[in-house]
Amino acid sequence: MKVIMDLCVVPIGVGVSVSKYVVACHEVLEKAGLQTKLHAYGTNIEGDWDRVMAAVKACHAKIHEMGAPRITTTIKLGTRVDREQSMYEKVDSVVRQQAGGN
Amino acid sequence: MKVIMDLCVVPIGVGVSVSKYVVACHEVLEKAGLQTKLHAYGTNIEGDWDRVMAAVKACHAKIHEMGAPRITTTIKLGTRVDREQSMYEKVDSVVRQQAGGN
Amino acid sequence: MKVIMDLCVVPIGVGVSVSKYVVACHEVLEKAGLQTKLHAYGTNIEGDWDRVMAAVKACHAKIHEMGAPRITTTIKLGTRVDREQSMYEKVDSVVRQQAGGN
Amino acid sequence: MKVIMDLCVVPIGVGVSVSKYVVACHEVLEKAGLQTKLHAYGTNIEGDWDRVMAAVKACHAKIHEMGAPRITTTIKLGTRVDREQSMYEKVDSVVRQQAGGN
Repeated sequence: MKVIMDLCVVPIGVGVSVSKYVVACHEVLEKAGLQTKLHAYGTNIEGDWDRVMAAVKACHAKIHEMGAPRITTTIKLGTRVDREQSMYEKVDSVVRQQAGGN
Repeated sequence: MKVIMDLCVVPIGVGVSVSKYVVACHEVLEKAGLQTKLHAYGTNIEGDWDRVMAAVKACHAKIHEMGAPRITTTIKLGTRVDREQSMYEKVDSVVRQQAGGN
Repeated sequence: MKVIMDLCVVPIGVGVSVSKYVVACHEVLEKAGLQTKLHAYGTNIEGDWDRVMAAVKACHAKIHEMGAPRITTTIKLGTRVDREQSMYEKVDSVVRQQAGGN
Repeated sequence: MKVIMDLCVVPIGVGVSVSKYVVACHEVLEKAGLQTKLHAYGTNIEGDWDRVMAAVKACHAKIHEMGAPRITTTIKLGTRVDREQSMYEKVDSVVRQQAGGN
């Protein structure tokens, strides 16, 4: 099963700046060979369900290892069985319609 | 690694009423032997990371099997390594402070 | 427009224990006269869109006032125009079907 | 109060393809003069709290008007009082660290 995910990992108890944890998490996702795209409030990820979920777990493990006692994560995830769709096609579909096309 | 999760599964393309899918998902979680608590906008789940995630995947599989072509799910999940905490303790901690205690 | 919301407010930069902020937020919601129900990963809220949103803003203001430099909040919110539905009916609908009824 | 938001609006009961509703919602946000950035699982928005929230409400109103009987929306929103930060700076901060800088 393929999944498109939006992942936002928030370490708690490490102060107000969390970007180094976001960077570490991003490295974990890259090493996992997943397609990712960072945005201002999370990271889009696309891939096989089990591989994506294993990477999310590895992010939590890594961030705890870096010293964060607590993590709260928000995930949106989509699966579909009617047809294949990549995260780039999702954006394209909207952009094309905005341009007056279809 | 233990996780406390809030899970909200939304089937798309099956009409406006989605409660039968929520029921089916709840059955999957129960069969998995996980502690769960339904609320008005999702289900709290507590358990071992891998078992909880396997159950979430089984929910998606079940709901697709029931005919939903597409599913979008929102998950909040928390892990902590500083101490053990159950989902009942999280609620208790707030309720006790509201009562003027500590 | 009526809304059913799930609200989870996470103060960042105030250490690992956040329950006193959750308590303060809950008080703000109660004072606003909104129907609320706490669960292990947030609070369900039901009411008029503008009043609910004003209360969410008041929660952020209160928590910053208490010293949190940064807040990240996750919200799920539902509106429907086909019929009225309370947050208790949403839970009831699932529980009744689980009991073998309809 | 300034807010950085991630907005994901899901119309329910209108079939499996929801992109025309996403397009309509995006138009509402643009008309509101807000800075936005579409991604594969939502839209990043930056602006004054009240103006952003008014636009979210206008999105719900518009999508119901287009025929969707029910909408479920997932929002992440961040406020901070320690310093100003734009959504572009949030991404930049991560990208710079990835590049080995600081």
